[in-house]
Amino acid sequence: MISSRALDEAMRHALSLAAHGPTTGGNPQVGCVLLDESGVMVAEGWHRGAGTPHAETDALSRVADAAGLTAVVTLEPCNHTGRTGPCAQALIDAGVRRVVFALSDPGQDSAGGADRLRAAGVEVIAGVLEAEASEFLTPWLVAAARRRPWVTAKWASTLDGRIAAADGTSRWITGTAARQHVHEQRAGNDAIMVGTGTVLADDPALTARGDAGELLERQPLPVVLGEREVPADARLRQHPLGFIQFATRDLASALDDLWRRDVGRVYVEGGPTLISAAISAGLVDEYHIYLSPMLLGGPRHAVGDLGITTMTDALRLHLRDFRRLGDDIVVMARTVPGPTHPSLDRGDDVAHGIAPERH
Amino acid sequence: MISSRALDEAMRHALSLAAHGPTTGGNPQVGCVLLDESGVMVAEGWHRGAGTPHAETDALSRVADAAGLTAVVTLEPCNHTGRTGPCAQALIDAGVRRVVFALSDPGQDSAGGADRLRAAGVEVIAGVLEAEASEFLTPWLVAAARRRPWVTAKWASTLDGRIAAADGTSRWITGTAARQHVHEQRAGNDAIMVGTGTVLADDPALTARGDAGELLERQPLPVVLGEREVPADARLRQHPLGFIQFATRDLASALDDLWRRDVGRVYVEGGPTLISAAISAGLVDEYHIYLSPMLLGGPRHAVGDLGITTMTDALRLHLRDFRRLGDDIVVMARTVPGPTHPSLDRGDDVAHGIAPERH
Ligand SMILES: NC(=O)c1ccc[n+]([C@@H]2O[C@H](COP(=O)([O-])OP(=O)(O)OC[C@H]3O[C@@H](n4cnc5c(N)ncnc54)[C@H](OP(=O)(O)O)[C@@H]3O)[C@@H](O)[C@H]2O)c1
Ligand SMILES: NC(=O)c1ccc[n+]([C@@H]2O[C@H](COP(=O)([O-])OP(=O)(O)OC[C@H]3O[C@@H](n4cnc5c(N)ncnc54)[C@H](OP(=O)(O)O)[C@@H]3O)[C@@H](O)[C@H]2O)c1
Repeated sequence: MISSRALDEAMRHALSLAAHGPTTGGNPQVGCVLLDESGVMVAEGWHRGAGTPHAETDALSRVADAAGLTAVVTLEPCNHTGRTGPCAQALIDAGVRRVVFALSDPGQDSAGGADRLRAAGVEVIAGVLEAEASEFLTPWLVAAARRRPWVTAKWASTLDGRIAAADGTSRWITGTAARQHVHEQRAGNDAIMVGTGTVLADDPALTARGDAGELLERQPLPVVLGEREVPADARLRQHPLGFIQFATRDLASALDDLWRRDVGRVYVEGGPTLISAAISAGLVDEYHIYLSPMLLGGPRHAVGDLGITTMTDALRLHLRDFRRLGDDIVVMARTVPGPTHPSLDRGDDVAHGIAPERH
Repeated sequence: MISSRALDEAMRHALSLAAHGPTTGGNPQVGCVLLDESGVMVAEGWHRGAGTPHAETDALSRVADAAGLTAVVTLEPCNHTGRTGPCAQALIDAGVRRVVFALSDPGQDSAGGADRLRAAGVEVIAGVLEAEASEFLTPWLVAAARRRPWVTAKWASTLDGRIAAADGTSRWITGTAARQHVHEQRAGNDAIMVGTGTVLADDPALTARGDAGELLERQPLPVVLGEREVPADARLRQHPLGFIQFATRDLASALDDLWRRDVGRVYVEGGPTLISAAISAGLVDEYHIYLSPMLLGGPRHAVGDLGITTMTDALRLHLRDFRRLGDDIVVMARTVPGPTHPSLDRGDDVAHGIAPERH
């Protein structure tokens, strides 16, 4: 017998392992720990992204003999043969005696792992640290439930909400620490989206770069929304991944299309026209607002009209985090409150089990 | 001999005592500690506001015999007979052997205490923790140097810089913790100023209240700026201190007038027209910006036009503090950087010694 405190501890460790995996690539971040019967950890594993072993397989590969061990996994082992075989079967084949997981698999094709395990005589304990795991995976769970990418809107403004001076100059509102933070966020998203207005005004490279200007290993796919053409000499045309333009103003359809291309997270960097349209359409899940200790006044607002006329219709956000970055402050907030596992709070569209399979 | 480390420690304690005194009333916050020759603290004192004993006198009154003691004071003992006698003389008369202070007295009539002490054979050590003391007294020092009140502009906005919805509704943008913080700030100022627009739109009481709605002990004087009349039934007319209206839009002249009435700190609560005018005129020293995790969009901005056209003219502030208050964030920033003792950074107007006497 392993104490429930030891299981909690192992699960907490598995969650920290999960965080090593990428937030990009369409698959959830999952961690796994193998314990012997006295509760001692004998192996750990995590998922390193689509096409690589799942966390359970990764952990199993690190022991000579898994017979009689307990597997502690952040997500229900999958029951689905994708690019890798079903993890539930791998655990059974390895002779694991007990499987402990935090969250049920919300996927239509991948769920059922717990049943398969039980049917094979493996003891199954579900729901250990479920709230923590659900909080950790919120973006993936929400995206899976809605079948559209998790959308983060980012802007950098003065304390009075301006993103540029009256003449359009805006270099630099925030300092280097905040700008470096933005590059890291870019790397944590599958796609980065701007409107044609930003392309034409700023000619951005839309790469994720390190503080010496070098390209980071992970690059989000640049996406441009809007009908105007991207100039032939735009820096965007030199992006290592190329870029996609949706010659439309229909953000929802662009997000649908991106979801079908395995884009699970989109980082919308502006400008104000696109950001305001995305907010009004209810398509923003998370906000990263960089505030510079500066005032500008004037006509260039980070957010324009949202179609809100009275206080009761204000868009209320859930503050998640805020911190100093150099002289600036970043405020992170979400449209949804903390834990949002679809199984805890099923909306209509979720009840039909429309979550995607894992690849 | 007392070690310089012991003197630093005593000065740090004297600064903490100083903070017990009011920020209002025109006098600086001053603390004093008396040490015996082995560096042991034998008494402490602080100034409790205009008309009450100065910190040195307060501390001296708490020992039977001060002969041979060392007085550690945050500000140079005054040399001026106001409502109380000169502290330098009181220390001499008490037989104090050594006086240690942090900041020189910037006052025209009150300075000279150190010279008087030295002439009487008292050992004087100046400049102990000068930077800390100067930082602590910045608002008083700056006001004294400029001969106008220290002005704090406060507003509460959404993360996109809106103070109301399109239809004018604004209850409540911030939550109770932020609103209670505002009441405490009111109590720390001598006057609270609004434009006629706010009086007519909101009919504010402009009292400083506790969280049960009770009046706090200290009430700032309500001041209205603008030509339109305050309605006969305005709640402002029930304020325990009455109110002053300056039927003008000339904020600088109103501040001059208030300074002559011993108003050392003014808290400008808006609305946007007055706030923007105050910022443009360079009359704001400190900003308290309450940010609610909410978006509104639309036309009602916390700050309007500031006459700034290009980034190089942006008004750069010095971030001092920010913290969570309930679900909201307050950001505190200043126009001036940290320590600003006039003796450290004399502007032209300061070189003429125009700092006020203490009362
Ligand atoms: N501080 C910051 O964080 C930040 C970030 C980015 C940009 N900026 C600044 O923002 C300025 C550009 O502003 P902007 O508002 O023109 O840029 P934008 O939002 O990038 O582009 C606006 C254009 O996007 C297209 N579009 C796509 N979807 C739309 C929709 N649903 N509704 C309306 N239009 C849509 C339209 O182009 P078509 O006419 O081609 O269809 C529209 O004109 C620049 O000065 C830039 O420096 C600041
Ligand atoms: N969220 C917040 O923190 C907050 C705080 C306060 C108010 N508010 C909102 O602000 C709205 C009122 O806005 P407002 O801008 O009309 O209020 P306001 O700034 O209080 O009043 C504007 C009036 O002040 C007078 N004034 C005084 N000095 C001036 C100067 N230097 N330049 C121009 N005018 C000067 C003018 O009145 P005369 O024409 O009479 O000369 C002007 O019309 C209300 O809806 C209120 O709810 C929000």
